[in-house]
Amino acid sequence: MRYLFGIDIGGTSVKIGFFSENTELLEEWSMPTVLSHLIAEICGNIRTFLKERKVEFCDILGIGIGVCGIVKDGIVLRSVNLGWENVDVISEFQSELGSAIDMVLLNDANAATIAEFSVLRNQYSNMVFLTLGTGVGGGMVLNGQLLEGANGKCGEFGHLKVDDKYREVCSCGKIGCLETIVSIRGLKRLALHYQKILPTKLSFDRLTPKSIFDAARKKDVLAARVVTEAADALATAMVMISDIVDPEVFVLGGGISQAGSVLLKAVKDAYFRKTSKNSNTEILLSVFKNKAGIYGAAQQLQKKTGGK
Amino acid sequence: MRYLFGIDIGGTSVKIGFFSENTELLEEWSMPTVLSHLIAEICGNIRTFLKERKVEFCDILGIGIGVCGIVKDGIVLRSVNLGWENVDVISEFQSELGSAIDMVLLNDANAATIAEFSVLRNQYSNMVFLTLGTGVGGGMVLNGQLLEGANGKCGEFGHLKVDDKYREVCSCGKIGCLETIVSIRGLKRLALHYQKILPTKLSFDRLTPKSIFDAARKKDVLAARVVTEAADALATAMVMISDIVDPEVFVLGGGISQAGSVLLKAVKDAYFRKTSKNSNTEILLSVFKNKAGIYGAAQQLQKKTGGK
Repeated sequence: MRYLFGIDIGGTSVKIGFFSENTELLEEWSMPTVLSHLIAEICGNIRTFLKERKVEFCDILGIGIGVCGIVKDGIVLRSVNLGWENVDVISEFQSELGSAIDMVLLNDANAATIAEFSVLRNQYSNMVFLTLGTGVGGGMVLNGQLLEGANGKCGEFGHLKVDDKYREVCSCGKIGCLETIVSIRGLKRLALHYQKILPTKLSFDRLTPKSIFDAARKKDVLAARVVTEAADALATAMVMISDIVDPEVFVLGGGISQAGSVLLKAVKDAYFRKTSKNSNTEILLSVFKNKAGIYGAAQQLQKKTGGK
Repeated sequence: MRYLFGIDIGGTSVKIGFFSENTELLEEWSMPTVLSHLIAEICGNIRTFLKERKVEFCDILGIGIGVCGIVKDGIVLRSVNLGWENVDVISEFQSELGSAIDMVLLNDANAATIAEFSVLRNQYSNMVFLTLGTGVGGGMVLNGQLLEGANGKCGEFGHLKVDDKYREVCSCGKIGCLETIVSIRGLKRLALHYQKILPTKLSFDRLTPKSIFDAARKKDVLAARVVTEAADALATAMVMISDIVDPEVFVLGGGISQAGSVLLKAVKDAYFRKTSKNSNTEILLSVFKNKAGIYGAAQQLQKKTGGK
């Protein structure tokens, strides 16, 4: 029996998945993202895990690593959240765990894209994945291939300009970006905007995307309005994406997508109202949810090693 | 010696190129687009041409056909300009010229994309081509492959929303589309908008994109303003495209791109001001100009037949 790891290094936590060689998830855990000696911490964690389970290093097929940052040709060019610039992540992992272990490195959103596409590849060859969470990102499979982009920067959906009304300044310095509306902060800001205008039973002390979507499901007027506006902004961006790459299917992932059907219905309504195509485009929710990153990293590693 | 044809069927004229089997252009001509019996007219034209030059049909390797319309799986699903719906163009050509002749059918903007990429393929694998003329369209090569899109509708750059100011209604029914500004009509409309506001030596009786760009080159205040605004709108769309697919190079083609350096400089200024990437993106002018369509159609045919 051989195994592999899928790791998802995010800005707040690192998720680690222990997989069979057929990329079945066997165990998973997470640890907080510490900014000093992060890679050494992760590797120490893995060594301890293997020791406890009496698994030998020679039974590890390899490690797939997804990182929240710009990845190009096996290097993390920049990760704002991790404070990394030009980090050769694979070399650092190999110097901790041994150079005999196969590794692949990819952007976290691309890892998630690979996972979501794995369950759709028999039906589709053009998929756009949007991840909605702290920020908005994503990835694309076009003509059946993952797109990395010239600078490792494709799928920057969060900075599409979709809003002329609130004109919030985004972290990127521009105004009206999708991320200023359809993100954890964006949704809270929208709810606060309507606080004195619309009736609501929302508790503003403990405002989360979940509380907003839960209230919308119970027909809370303010919450429903927030969901409609967020769905509208997201649909505007999706129409732009569709005009450019014309995918067969959109997949919505990230924490906010866990709102489920109340979000999906609002997005579909807005998208089909806005698109000028007599569109047969599918809009689906993520299958792997917050595990998409570890699954995709493991799948990419398996693909690289060819299950050797 | 064997030959092939590259045909570009547009809304106002049909361009026909007669190529060597190495896709060198030997002769070219054009004919007006007539709406009844168009394919029979084109084929009659080709037969006469071959007869005059004493070229036998058996020396024709094949015909590449680019059409202004939505092409998917060898069928023109719809061409608004030609009034076609679900037309099996290849069958119609073959019933005129014989089924022994190899043919390929593609969208005209995709044909032009193939031609422009043919001179860049050693340097780049991600190119976005924009054609600026009566409307705005384009095509993309990503990961070295032409993208057709799920519905044959990728590259619809003309309907990206770039304008909040003039809010012109586009032919698609939406407001603020790129095509309402950076197109032959759009440029004229912009010039007329500024007619009573800005000093100019432009003759409004014979207003063309060329006269506007020529005047801008001579520092005409109104014309320079029109060029700046058009370049700004185009750059806004290019930033969106870049956020989504992150190309290495943009190529600007179509009649308006023949304005040359005055347009290119304005577009580069606006693009690099707007993009949030420290961008090494190239922005180039079309090499094949208005012959891109016939070259690309011929190249695609040659690729299909493998020069057999």
